[in-house]
Parts: sequence; structure tokens; C-alpha cells
Amino acid sequence: MAKKKEKPVILITNDDDITSPGIRNLVEAVKDLGKVVVVAPDKPQSGMGHAITIGSPLRMNRMNIFGDVEAWQTTGTPVDCVKLAVDKILHRKPDLCLSGINHGANHSINVIYSGTMSAAMEASIEGIPSIGFSLLDYRYEADFTASKMVVTKMVKKLLEKKMDKHLLLNVNIPAVPVSELKGIKICKQAYAKYEEDFDERLDPHGKKYYWLTGEFINFDKGKDTDVWALQHNYASVVPVQFDLTNYTLKKQLEKSKLFK
Amino acid sequence: MAKKKEKPVILITNDDDITSPGIRNLVEAVKDLGKVVVVAPDKPQSGMGHAITIGSPLRMNRMNIFGDVEAWQTTGTPVDCVKLAVDKILHRKPDLCLSGINHGANHSINVIYSGTMSAAMEASIEGIPSIGFSLLDYRYEADFTASKMVVTKMVKKLLEKKMDKHLLLNVNIPAVPVSELKGIKICKQAYAKYEEDFDERLDPHGKKYYWLTGEFINFDKGKDTDVWALQHNYASVVPVQFDLTNYTLKKQLEKSKLFK
Repeated sequence: MAKKKEKPVILITNDDDITSPGIRNLVEAVKDLGKVVVVAPDKPQSGMGHAITIGSPLRMNRMNIFGDVEAWQTTGTPVDCVKLAVDKILHRKPDLCLSGINHGANHSINVIYSGTMSAAMEASIEGIPSIGFSLLDYRYEADFTASKMVVTKMVKKLLEKKMDKHLLLNVNIPAVPVSELKGIKICKQAYAKYEEDFDERLDPHGKKYYWLTGEFINFDKGKDTDVWALQHNYASVVPVQFDLTNYTLKKQLEKSKLFK
Repeated sequence: MAKKKEKPVILITNDDDITSPGIRNLVEAVKDLGKVVVVAPDKPQSGMGHAITIGSPLRMNRMNIFGDVEAWQTTGTPVDCVKLAVDKILHRKPDLCLSGINHGANHSINVIYSGTMSAAMEASIEGIPSIGFSLLDYRYEADFTASKMVVTKMVKKLLEKKMDKHLLLNVNIPAVPVSELKGIKICKQAYAKYEEDFDERLDPHGKKYYWLTGEFINFDKGKDTDVWALQHNYASVVPVQFDLTNYTLKKQLEKSKLFK
């Protein structure tokens, strides 16, 4: 008799905090596809990048907020959550790690600042296939219907085949109703940046303080970028790597003997 | 008469805090090569990755700790420091941004967790050539003599030629006396990771808490990596990029039509 196939273990985390609608929608989208365990921060961690907590200890507490789904909140960053999940909760590597669904875009250069994507990257470094999902809508009331469809479809497809253990995808979904979603497009990261514009204010004691604000500027006019895909109502999928070596520049510097 | 060439503006930051010996040694190594301005955090920010401060405002204060060199401490992360420097202090892009000298290694996968390298990467995204320097010695009393030699040599060479505006280098220096330093080697980022091992403790109230600890494991046996170079007493230089697209996987996914 064939051995019954075990359900895949799916670790879910995010950076908006464990009570955000985005992570609840992510749980709902995949809870029938495997054994889901949630380990997520107890407070918003947007813009935390790949931060880890080394100067203070971490706490974690069991939560009962997703019905049958095991859930833990931690005092750590998204990256800490992945580390804690593997070492202290699952005591094994999950088969897949999903991060999100983020409230707000993580396309183009945002991949570098994003707590959502850093959690996914941490999993990928550990040898766990991983995907970060983000919806281009910051609002608490955002409509996750199209996002959930994209999540379920992608996770099903990926679980059906043998995934590379370092697989890492950055998925963004446009804020459109299902009827307007054109499909899923494989893309490259657009070259874009934020033009800083700190908002300078005076406190009641006459001392200056600054709020970080900025304008998003896309320098990349290609049709193969995530920004283009999202502007044209596609969900964008950018395959991501954690080897940051610039091999072109490496060759140039070797050839130039500049530092000999 | 030939117009006198203006001194290049060199922005210096770090993640250990503005009073650390590492940043003082970096200032000393380059203060004769240009107009140096220091903008650095007022507290340790190690492991902050590419974190930015969006949930609270930032402060900055002038400091008089490097003699003639203009210096500011900020309440922000290393990435915030670069943004503040460009927008609120220099009111222009510096010609070069240097970050460090970090107390401790930032080779291999550490590039992703490192506040030192994130500050340098932020500058590179902004179109400012940038270098992060790290010494493989955590101690406050670390000997920066060899590091300073490497810094001065590299910065001199780079200022002599027209640099690509996105040039980004991750430089690590072994903890050896000058006489044992073998040279400067261009490398790739080694594939390595930390095997987490949280230290579980009980607080006085009987509740668990966890300290992040871990063992560094290098899976990469190549002689072209930064880890190899450092083990053989070379300073390692890894050219770094901020386009994280995995183009190999992109092609595979496009060909497979998996998500169609």
C-alpha cells in the first residue's frame, strides 16, 4: 500500500504584525494546501529591512486568532520570526515559507527596505523555498480577493513540483478587482529610487525634528519590469537572489589591477 | 590659469555609532583626500540591515569630536544617516560615501544583515559611489593600522579615476598586523549562513525568553570567495549590486509557463 503523502508544512510570517488583514488573507488562501503555522511580529515592522535582534532578547506567545491554525506572535523582526520558527517552534525546516500579504507595494527597489521580503529572503538563505506577497493598497480595508487568487494559484503550482530550495519570489499584486487582473507576469526588478524629502518641523521647545518622506521615481522604462507589469494590471513575479556579487564589476576590477 | 580643482566631498557613516574607534580611524585615513563630513548614528545599529525609520521622527545634532571635520550624530539608522546627509546637511550628493570601519566581519552573507553595508548600498542606489569597510575584530581595542592602509590606498586610487556612480564595494580586512597583510583581492560573496541556536532562558517570573546566537557555516569551498581571501590574510573586495533579480531563475520560469 502506498504510504500516505504527508501534508507540506507552510510557515507564514509578515511585517505588518500578526493581526493585520493581509496575513489573515494569506492564511485563508493556503490553509487547505498544507499544515500552516504562523509566526509573526506583535507590532508593525515595515521598513525594517533585513534587521535582526542581537542587543535584546526575544519573547514569543501562542495566539488563538486563526481558528485551527497554530499561531505565535514574537517581539522580533520578520527575520527573527523565521529564525525562531525553524529553531524553536517547528524544530525543522518548513517545506515553504510565505510572507505577507503586505499592505503596500514591495516592487522595484522596495525589495531592499521591505521586512516582508527580508523574511522571505532569510528563509531562502536557510534553504527554504519562499515567496513574499504584497498588495498595492496600504489601507486596512484593502480588498484582498485578487491577491488570494494569485496566492492560491502560485502555491498550488509550486507545491506540485520539486522546488529549488533557495527559490525566492517577490510577488506584487495590483489593487484591482479580479475582473481587471490580467494575469501573472515574470519580471525583473525595476531600477527606481526614492527622492528623499525630509519634512522638517519644530517641536514645542523650538528644536528641529525630521520625518522621512520621499517621492518614488522609476528610471526604468523597460516593459520587462515589475513596475510596468503592475501599471498594466498584471501581478508581478520577480525571482530574487541573495548573492549580491556584481560579477560584471568583479571582472572589470580584476582586469584593471587598480588595487594591486 | 587652470581652475583649481575642488576637493571631493566624502561622506562618512557607520553602524557602530559615531564615537566608535572604527569611524575615527576611517576619518583619519581619508581626511587629507577630500572635504570629509561625518553623519552617523548616536547609538549602535549593528544588524539593522536596510532598516529605515518611518514610524517616528529623526533628530540630528552637531558634534565636535573629529577636530576640523564636520560631524553630525542622528537618532536614525545607517540608511537614515545617508538620506539625512544628502537632503539636510550636504544639500548635494557627495562624491564618495564611506561606511565603517565596522568592528567585526561583514563578509559573505553578512552583507545582507549589515548596517555598514546597507548605508553604503543606500548611497549606491542614490548614485553615489560607495564603499563599506569592516575589520575582522569586534573589540573596542582593535588595531586599525592595516585597515587604514587599505582604506587610504583604495580611496586614493578610486578618486583618481572616474567612478561609476553606482560603484559599491564590500571591503573586509583580516585582523593581522601590517607585515602579514598579503594584499587586496577582488572576490565573490561566499555562500555561507548562520545555523541559528537560540539561547533559551527563564526570567525571574518563570517565563521564557530567547537570545539569538548562531554558528557561522561556510558552504563555499571556492578560492574566489571573500571568506577564502580573509583566511589567507588578504583584504577582500566584493563588488556589490542592488538589482536582486535572479535572471537565471527568471528565464526558467518564463520558459516553464508555470503560472500561466
